[in-house]
Amino acid sequence: MGWFRVFACSWWGSGGAVDSLDCVAIVGVGLIGGSVGLALRQRGLAETVVGIGRRQSTLRAARRVGAVTRTTRDLAAGVARADLVLVCVPIGSIVEQVRRVAEHARPGTLITDAGSTKAEIVRALDRPLARGCRFVGSHPLAGSEKAGPQHARADLFQGRLVVLTPTRRSRPGDVERLERFWSALGAEVVRMTAAEHDRAVAWTSHLPHAAAVALAAVVPGRYLPLAGTGLEDTSRLAGGSPELWTQIFAANRRHVAAALRRFERQIQALRAAVEQENSSRLKRILSRAKTKRDAVGS
Amino acid sequence: MGWFRVFACSWWGSGGAVDSLDCVAIVGVGLIGGSVGLALRQRGLAETVVGIGRRQSTLRAARRVGAVTRTTRDLAAGVARADLVLVCVPIGSIVEQVRRVAEHARPGTLITDAGSTKAEIVRALDRPLARGCRFVGSHPLAGSEKAGPQHARADLFQGRLVVLTPTRRSRPGDVERLERFWSALGAEVVRMTAAEHDRAVAWTSHLPHAAAVALAAVVPGRYLPLAGTGLEDTSRLAGGSPELWTQIFAANRRHVAAALRRFERQIQALRAAVEQENSSRLKRILSRAKTKRDAVGS
Repeated sequence: MGWFRVFACSWWGSGGAVDSLDCVAIVGVGLIGGSVGLALRQRGLAETVVGIGRRQSTLRAARRVGAVTRTTRDLAAGVARADLVLVCVPIGSIVEQVRRVAEHARPGTLITDAGSTKAEIVRALDRPLARGCRFVGSHPLAGSEKAGPQHARADLFQGRLVVLTPTRRSRPGDVERLERFWSALGAEVVRMTAAEHDRAVAWTSHLPHAAAVALAAVVPGRYLPLAGTGLEDTSRLAGGSPELWTQIFAANRRHVAAALRRFERQIQALRAAVEQENSSRLKRILSRAKTKRDAVGS
Repeated sequence: MGWFRVFACSWWGSGGAVDSLDCVAIVGVGLIGGSVGLALRQRGLAETVVGIGRRQSTLRAARRVGAVTRTTRDLAAGVARADLVLVCVPIGSIVEQVRRVAEHARPGTLITDAGSTKAEIVRALDRPLARGCRFVGSHPLAGSEKAGPQHARADLFQGRLVVLTPTRRSRPGDVERLERFWSALGAEVVRMTAAEHDRAVAWTSHLPHAAAVALAAVVPGRYLPLAGTGLEDTSRLAGGSPELWTQIFAANRRHVAAALRRFERQIQALRAAVEQENSSRLKRILSRAKTKRDAVGS
């Protein structure tokens, strides 16, 4: 696959120099940004965490849950003293926000994101940014169908995977620094190319989302009172933001369409086996799925 | 829909006479049978709980977790003194096992099951059984992809729905007795016809299972290390027993096929919207799914 797991330090800076993080700026303090802030603060990893956003209500909520030490709606002021800037906004706005950050951050500041797709973003930002700032893409495979800093959790990244998508232009020191950063929040870090990342998450994240959405969309409303834990779990992702997911599907269009086509064919095969009362075929599909699923873990 | 929720007593017999249950016999002490036993014992609702099964290893496991007070492989001996018999075996064996129970139970004993489909079973058993025994179908909408008494939980039915499927031949007293029984285990009880039940669970249980199976079956194995909580939850049901689910899909063939057809079309619509970069169509589907999903609860 061309990617490898980083058997990273289990704590901030162990096995390497401790990064000095006087100030981390987080642009967009929703679930992900808020959880990063909360984890940084609860682990005592940053002196100051500045939350930057457009809506006062979100910033207030981020302060209230303790995800940030101060907030501002002025991006330029917010990033001015940051050692590291995380851009945790919907993917459609990441490129623009990273460029704006670079224009106002200290020279040479490292910037990363938390976007669910990477190819378009990395392509647009893999060039010199203003003031010598540099971007390396991150994707924490963590989250929830719930949005907003009020659902932030300090342990959101604990034991989860974070994919970094450096390019040939990326400085090794920047990539290592981000590895230490996410590891310090409890995550395991792997590196992949942006293209590999997008193909993989089409299957492991975007297809499950589409399946949950299609399921929730077709279940007749009058039967919902009979929903058990099975339907609850299987359709959980459909509770996610339609706005965000429209952007994600669009940004990863080709891989998502391919995964959906394959999924359709599998559903057709299942239906054919049911209709034709082909029990042995049915059991084969169910057994193959169980073997795969048992490898995922609970 | 023709079914109604029974705002049942929250505890055994409250609002009615307390049923005397000296002895409950459970044929098949897997996850469901074991959990019934555990709940009966932990709540002090039955003096004796007899576990009846074919395999000594399962019976031993049921005893070990405290789901039963005694066990036997001899069905005739096991049901001989029971006040109530639960048949918790795979659906393909329920009819035969209920008939065997009737031949050996005390005259007039009430028998129920825990099968995931009801029409075939109820049709076969809606007639006089041996020794004046009577059958009324139950389906507790509770469970797990994990099998066996070692996964039994006393709270498995707590807050879950149990569907009873009485017929015109059923005695009101029998139905009320089963309502009190399941309510005493913490469940909410509703009554439906077997046909209504099977149509409803095709959507709320069998379709989610098929979606999880298809998802697990198609995700390329090399990407599984990137599975996040989204894929984990969405594919959880695929860990269920292929043997049991082959029987369930077969028994509810017509309704399952109809649900799968509708699901296929929705997946196609999603794919078309992605391929055609039709964001407004995509967002409409996602929004409709979210509204439905938000009504299911977490």
